[in-house]
Amino acid sequence: MGNKKITIIIFSGELDKALAAFNIATGAATMGMDVTMFFTFWGLNIIRKDQKPKSKGVLKKLLSLMNKGGTKHLPLSRFHMLGIGQKMMRKLMKDSKIPSVDEMIVVAKELSVKFVACTTTMGLMDITKETLIEEVDAFAGVATYIDEAKDGQINLFI
Amino acid sequence: MGNKKITIIIFSGELDKALAAFNIATGAATMGMDVTMFFTFWGLNIIRKDQKPKSKGVLKKLLSLMNKGGTKHLPLSRFHMLGIGQKMMRKLMKDSKIPSVDEMIVVAKELSVKFVACTTTMGLMDITKETLIEEVDAFAGVATYIDEAKDGQINLFI
Amino acid sequence: MGNKKITIIIFSGELDKALAAFNIATGAATMGMDVTMFFTFWGLNIIRKDQKPKSKGVLKKLLSLMNKGGTKHLPLSRFHMLGIGQKMMRKLMKDSKIPSVDEMIVVAKELSVKFVACTTTMGLMDITKETLIEEVDAFAGVATYIDEAKDGQINLFI
Repeated sequence: MGNKKITIIIFSGELDKALAAFNIATGAATMGMDVTMFFTFWGLNIIRKDQKPKSKGVLKKLLSLMNKGGTKHLPLSRFHMLGIGQKMMRKLMKDSKIPSVDEMIVVAKELSVKFVACTTTMGLMDITKETLIEEVDAFAGVATYIDEAKDGQINLFI
Repeated sequence: MGNKKITIIIFSGELDKALAAFNIATGAATMGMDVTMFFTFWGLNIIRKDQKPKSKGVLKKLLSLMNKGGTKHLPLSRFHMLGIGQKMMRKLMKDSKIPSVDEMIVVAKELSVKFVACTTTMGLMDITKETLIEEVDAFAGVATYIDEAKDGQINLFI
Repeated sequence: MGNKKITIIIFSGELDKALAAFNIATGAATMGMDVTMFFTFWGLNIIRKDQKPKSKGVLKKLLSLMNKGGTKHLPLSRFHMLGIGQKMMRKLMKDSKIPSVDEMIVVAKELSVKFVACTTTMGLMDITKETLIEEVDAFAGVATYIDEAKDGQINLFI
């Protein structure tokens, strides 16, 4: 029979939603479930290295300038206020001893949570494999997602 | 075997999303399903009393000033326009005889929908049990969610 | 036993989220699953014709002026920038040979994906059947959704 399964699509690239996603993912893994996180669209920012983009073409260059990778640049879904809200939330998380997204990534990997990067978005936004963090286990499209999720007990879109 | 189950995580604290969540929750309960709503992050605002916050510390005070509790303060996810859109939507709901969120909370409780408040967010945002409405059935973290959701036929993240 | 089933509630009326929803829907249909897309709230804009609204009453007129239907008017969930981000994204999609939402609607219908329009939202926003595209298979409320989703292997809220 195998373990129970959970899949999480992380579409949003916001700090608060990333927090929720990793909280659920590590919680489920702790309880013995197989967990796969599919990072797509803005969610890819969470697993991008914090480095200068090298995109070609004006549009992709512009997008990569605005749409910065790395957990330090994740905005809030509310009260972002040009970055003040995000800084505030990071401070609150620290004060409440809630691990940062970077720390949650480490914990998730220790618990064997699987990270999948969406190749369709990577093509669309000109994001290469080299610019993603080493913790990514697989690069795949929607077929891989459906294959996993159809046997999942919990499937979320965040 | 028991009834079929549905769990809904309400992460968003917006009027339109609250409407969707309660519509699904009460609909499912009417059809005989066991329904649990997990209020987390901004979604906690839906089940907060409409009262002045008493948070300590500048950051938490600031957050509680901006992030007002109570169903009257829920913004819209689009066309919020400093509150005009929200007022408009509440008027439209009334005109279309769609119950308000306050009324939906009453209906949900009559249908035995279970309300769970996320303790992690409560700690992060300095929200105490006393500031939440009496309709809350339980205070719990991610383990309780996973336990419920793994046996659910429908699990949504809103 | 029949095929495995997937349901997707499309609450958001944004280009990027529509893209994700149709990508999953057509992917699942290609793999032999029964797919139903429930368009509700802002998501209804995706299946509205691109035409002038004829709403009565100041509020509904105002809403229909701002909340334009048709796939051409879908904003982005991030970096919308008064429409520049959306135009940019459409250009990027074209460059990366990713089909437009209009093209995805055609593909979805060829793969027998079922389109359901939410009657509650239609009443709330004064959207009539005639103003929706012909590809809509059914007009229904939450009971129909629950009925489908309770037997679904994958149920998403986007």
